[in-house]
Amino acid sequence: MCGIFAYLNFNVSRERSYILRLLFNGLRRLEYRGYDSAGISIDYAHEASTAPLVFRQEGNIETLVKSVYQEVGATNLNLEESFSTHAGIAHTRWATHGEPAPRNSHPQTSDPENQFLVVHNGVITNYEVLKETLVRHGFTFESETDTEVIPKLAKFIFDNANEEGDKSMTFSQVVLEVMRHLEGAYALIFKSQHYPNELIACKRGSPLLLGVKELTEQTSNGASFNDVKYLSSNGQPKEFFFSSDASALVEHTKKVLVIEDNEVVHLKVLLTVTKLYSIIMLVTIVPLTIKLTSNIVEQINKGEYEHYMQKEIHEQPESLTTSMRGRLLRGGSCKAKSVLLGGLKDHLKTIRRSRRIVFIGCGTSYNAALASRPILEELSGIPVTMEIASDLLDRQGPIYREDTTIFVSQSGETADTLLALEYALENGALCVGITNTVGSAIARNTHCGVHLNAGCEIGVASTKAYTSQIVVMVMLALAIGGDTLSSQARREAIIDGLFELPSKVKEVLKLDEEMKELAKLLIAEQSLLVFGRGYNYSTALEGALKVKEVSLMHSEGMLAGEMKHGPLALVDETLPVVVIATHDTCFSKQQSVIQQLHARKGRLIVMCTKGDAASVCVGGSCRVIEVPQVEDCLQPVINIVPLQLLAYHLTVLRGYNVDQPRNLAKSVTTQ
Amino acid sequence: MCGIFAYLNFNVSRERSYILRLLFNGLRRLEYRGYDSAGISIDYAHEASTAPLVFRQEGNIETLVKSVYQEVGATNLNLEESFSTHAGIAHTRWATHGEPAPRNSHPQTSDPENQFLVVHNGVITNYEVLKETLVRHGFTFESETDTEVIPKLAKFIFDNANEEGDKSMTFSQVVLEVMRHLEGAYALIFKSQHYPNELIACKRGSPLLLGVKELTEQTSNGASFNDVKYLSSNGQPKEFFFSSDASALVEHTKKVLVIEDNEVVHLKVLLTVTKLYSIIMLVTIVPLTIKLTSNIVEQINKGEYEHYMQKEIHEQPESLTTSMRGRLLRGGSCKAKSVLLGGLKDHLKTIRRSRRIVFIGCGTSYNAALASRPILEELSGIPVTMEIASDLLDRQGPIYREDTTIFVSQSGETADTLLALEYALENGALCVGITNTVGSAIARNTHCGVHLNAGCEIGVASTKAYTSQIVVMVMLALAIGGDTLSSQARREAIIDGLFELPSKVKEVLKLDEEMKELAKLLIAEQSLLVFGRGYNYSTALEGALKVKEVSLMHSEGMLAGEMKHGPLALVDETLPVVVIATHDTCFSKQQSVIQQLHARKGRLIVMCTKGDAASVCVGGSCRVIEVPQVEDCLQPVINIVPLQLLAYHLTVLRGYNVDQPRNLAKSVTTQ
Repeated sequence: MCGIFAYLNFNVSRERSYILRLLFNGLRRLEYRGYDSAGISIDYAHEASTAPLVFRQEGNIETLVKSVYQEVGATNLNLEESFSTHAGIAHTRWATHGEPAPRNSHPQTSDPENQFLVVHNGVITNYEVLKETLVRHGFTFESETDTEVIPKLAKFIFDNANEEGDKSMTFSQVVLEVMRHLEGAYALIFKSQHYPNELIACKRGSPLLLGVKELTEQTSNGASFNDVKYLSSNGQPKEFFFSSDASALVEHTKKVLVIEDNEVVHLKVLLTVTKLYSIIMLVTIVPLTIKLTSNIVEQINKGEYEHYMQKEIHEQPESLTTSMRGRLLRGGSCKAKSVLLGGLKDHLKTIRRSRRIVFIGCGTSYNAALASRPILEELSGIPVTMEIASDLLDRQGPIYREDTTIFVSQSGETADTLLALEYALENGALCVGITNTVGSAIARNTHCGVHLNAGCEIGVASTKAYTSQIVVMVMLALAIGGDTLSSQARREAIIDGLFELPSKVKEVLKLDEEMKELAKLLIAEQSLLVFGRGYNYSTALEGALKVKEVSLMHSEGMLAGEMKHGPLALVDETLPVVVIATHDTCFSKQQSVIQQLHARKGRLIVMCTKGDAASVCVGGSCRVIEVPQVEDCLQPVINIVPLQLLAYHLTVLRGYNVDQPRNLAKSVTTQ
Repeated sequence: MCGIFAYLNFNVSRERSYILRLLFNGLRRLEYRGYDSAGISIDYAHEASTAPLVFRQEGNIETLVKSVYQEVGATNLNLEESFSTHAGIAHTRWATHGEPAPRNSHPQTSDPENQFLVVHNGVITNYEVLKETLVRHGFTFESETDTEVIPKLAKFIFDNANEEGDKSMTFSQVVLEVMRHLEGAYALIFKSQHYPNELIACKRGSPLLLGVKELTEQTSNGASFNDVKYLSSNGQPKEFFFSSDASALVEHTKKVLVIEDNEVVHLKVLLTVTKLYSIIMLVTIVPLTIKLTSNIVEQINKGEYEHYMQKEIHEQPESLTTSMRGRLLRGGSCKAKSVLLGGLKDHLKTIRRSRRIVFIGCGTSYNAALASRPILEELSGIPVTMEIASDLLDRQGPIYREDTTIFVSQSGETADTLLALEYALENGALCVGITNTVGSAIARNTHCGVHLNAGCEIGVASTKAYTSQIVVMVMLALAIGGDTLSSQARREAIIDGLFELPSKVKEVLKLDEEMKELAKLLIAEQSLLVFGRGYNYSTALEGALKVKEVSLMHSEGMLAGEMKHGPLALVDETLPVVVIATHDTCFSKQQSVIQQLHARKGRLIVMCTKGDAASVCVGGSCRVIEVPQVEDCLQPVINIVPLQLLAYHLTVLRGYNVDQPRNLAKSVTTQ
């Protein structure tokens, strides 16, 4: 979470010292949003096309303030110089990508001349592929941030247009083209040497406000404004402010506009006789996924992989890292290990008081919620009810004001989940969204939520979104659970487990070849059963769903505890049965399940913790998949990986289309 | 619900008029338990082996009192005659089997000489098979009650022993032998001409108390007693009372013993010098299922059927009738249609106030609960959570004092459900039991509950218990739901629906031959999918479970709303897919599911409401199963029947053992 602030004065003379003080004050109000580094940018001179000044510093706001005045003193910059119009931007940072350091602070810049400057709050999930492309086009990156791609992309677009002889490209056209390529959550403010005295703000997911102060009207009517046109209707002196939240605005004005996702606000002097200053509000639907035909950024390709599903399975160490980035606190300035979910923090109290928590989802998203249910129950003590979205709607089940409903959907557009959201809103429940798609319908219409930041998922069979969903919901459980002393050790163990999870996933991905061998053995089978329990009930359901979806084999996930209540009848020497029996409190029960299946001569494939092979596999008669052990509530993230690989290889070996399975589509946007 | 009362004075002279007054007063206290007929039995003379007198009358207690005094007047019976020891029994009835009439009132008798007399509170579920056997041995029945088999069975056992020359059979031996053959719920008091001045009381399920008044100790210490031995330790004058509840005892004594299930209390003068009067307390575990080797009552045979499962499927119109008997009120003395569940009525207020209702079960019982969930949610407005017993235990999910937990188990001994019950009790939840087995662990250890009264189920694949569970839980929903005006029409429609349900089940059973034909078509299939939603999500799960259990075909029940989130991939021209699409609010959604399956060339078998065939089956390309329509929440009872028949015929055709499916056992009493 970072704070961004900007100030633009029009037709009113302000000294440089006034502008600096105003920007610093803005940052001080926003300092709670981040305090490990900060930066500002102001103009050096009145003339257009002189490079703006940029000041960036590690540490809190006061460190920045001190260093700015030192530098001003050293360079003899005239603090008394007046500007009748001036555009300044400012940023206070909470490090997510890259350590706190001047080079990683904002404003991030396009080049040493600072042609384009950007302050950013949020996470760009596809920055790596953008960076790669820009590097190939000769850009040099100085920071480890995700943000740096934005000003550089702006410059790239601007330069391209100019090379092609298009000198008429406006600032907002540049920014719209930039937005088209960005994935993730952001609020951005752009400043450019090429467009002096202009600012552009845009957002998707992260909050951003515009404040306007009319200096001739001393009596503020206190109303917020909804129509931006009237602001353009006169040449009166005005001051404009952008801010991450209202706390930095209230001392200046009460005229505040909440900027919505995909809106672009362009502050620009219109070159008419009256020199009217105008806000141009561009409301535009920016494409949510990268156009594969883009002529600037090459398509996201499969790289070394043959299929998207394969790529996304192997991407999981990275996607999990991105999902956790900036959300886990360990060591550093605050010693205690904890979790920070910016999108939720204002609602945690309400959630903790709720009568029950209701998870609502479909398919894989439902399974991910099921995986997270036990730890949420354990840490919060609140009863958690599972609802398949369509079933809740069919039943018109009771949902009340006292309930917290959590909607899980990768696309954020799943029709059933969206309808269930409407139903829950009507019934007054608090609605929390967990989606991978910033600006999606579920992200927009819930009261609060968390983004997965897993990056774009293209394979129809969800893989990396599933593991990121679990990780995000475990963090959610940690956030809701509060910080009781009795659960401290447990919480810290989970946080440690989260930190080491990507490397463990890397480890389990090494089973690729082994799972391919297993797939060869199962290639001709008609049916497959998968038994799990406790945390891994979800693994059984999800593993079976993957096999079902892509390899078109009738696989069924089952609760191991229900085995004797029917399914055991199916077991014989021929039917392959996968049993998830990694180490946790249910282990001994799973051992007895294995023994019973063994007694029925079941054809067993047992997934167990590394080193347990001998104890789960009586007489070495069954096939064993050994996986690394992690904290019990995170084990489903590890355990699903071999089953994803199995489903993938089965599909390829059986000759089916991995990325576009028969009869299915990526997101189900009809009922 | 009936009330039973008995009085035995020992070593204290009581006039006949005193005894009569005492019995009548007892009945008056119990009148709330039943008021459509009543009866008593007293001795005619001091001498042993004179037939006791029996008075029975339709109407309330006062009608009985009047008629007794009229008859006494007419027969010149001496009301002043004193008895130093005398055993009298009394009963007030609430008609379940047979209309209110003297012949159906209690005491029921073994023969015109009243050799054995019985008063009974409860329901004997296997009375028909017992009656059949006794009729074959020459007994003539005069009533339509279930109770009449009890005294007749006692006489049969007594006569048999005497014929074989065993004159030493005690009263308690006779009663124990009787109990061994009874199924269902009961509290019984036996009186016999052959055992004058003795009484035997026993119970299973229904309540029964013993009160003792020591006439020499005027100062009652107010404590209840737990050790019956001390009562035998002196020859002091005493009075003994049996009663259905304490209200009829408090005016006489505070020394009250609660009789437990399977305990037999025998009041008998010991023929020793001191003429000590003794209570013999026999605590014995009476076998809960009829021994098939019984030498007295022939084994419950399969009659015209080849298998128990087949018999039990076809028995459903009767088992459903038994499950509802005496629990539905319509017309008669109370005009409003309502539901009376005796075992629950003291707890309804608590249940209505609970934060949530949690259904806990395994296998078929879980599916039955799932079928009843929507109507319980609708009528009560309380959120209902579904828990598979083993999963709740694995997760150690939150259960609180504010929760009502409902445990569903046919046998009442299912290990997982029983452990979940212990867990819920520890956590302070109100625990409600729904079982088919009176005196089972779950029936004993829950705070309250309802018996299915579906009769003994022998087939391992549960059929009639499933439909009775749904019916009982719908009645539960009606009872919990209260009687708001807005839901009155709905409630009355459901009650009307319940009344006509057995005849509708009879109608749907006519599909037997058709399902056999369908089974022939499916005989060689490897897989079967069953799609349902809303009320019939449970039908899909249960139908698939039946096929899986007995015919050993990999069938899977699925929520139709989840189809597009994965399972649709499996659908092609070869895989048979059953879709439940009977008329209810989800019908149009199911129509669209059918169309989508049709578009994928799915091999469809559609279950629809009679007359809907044309509208569900586009172009006549799919097979249709037409079933009669009932109230939506009862439709699962109808819809499961064809699938039970299908599973049965598939099994027979595939040559598997119907009643003992591979790897399974009737009740799972280990984890």
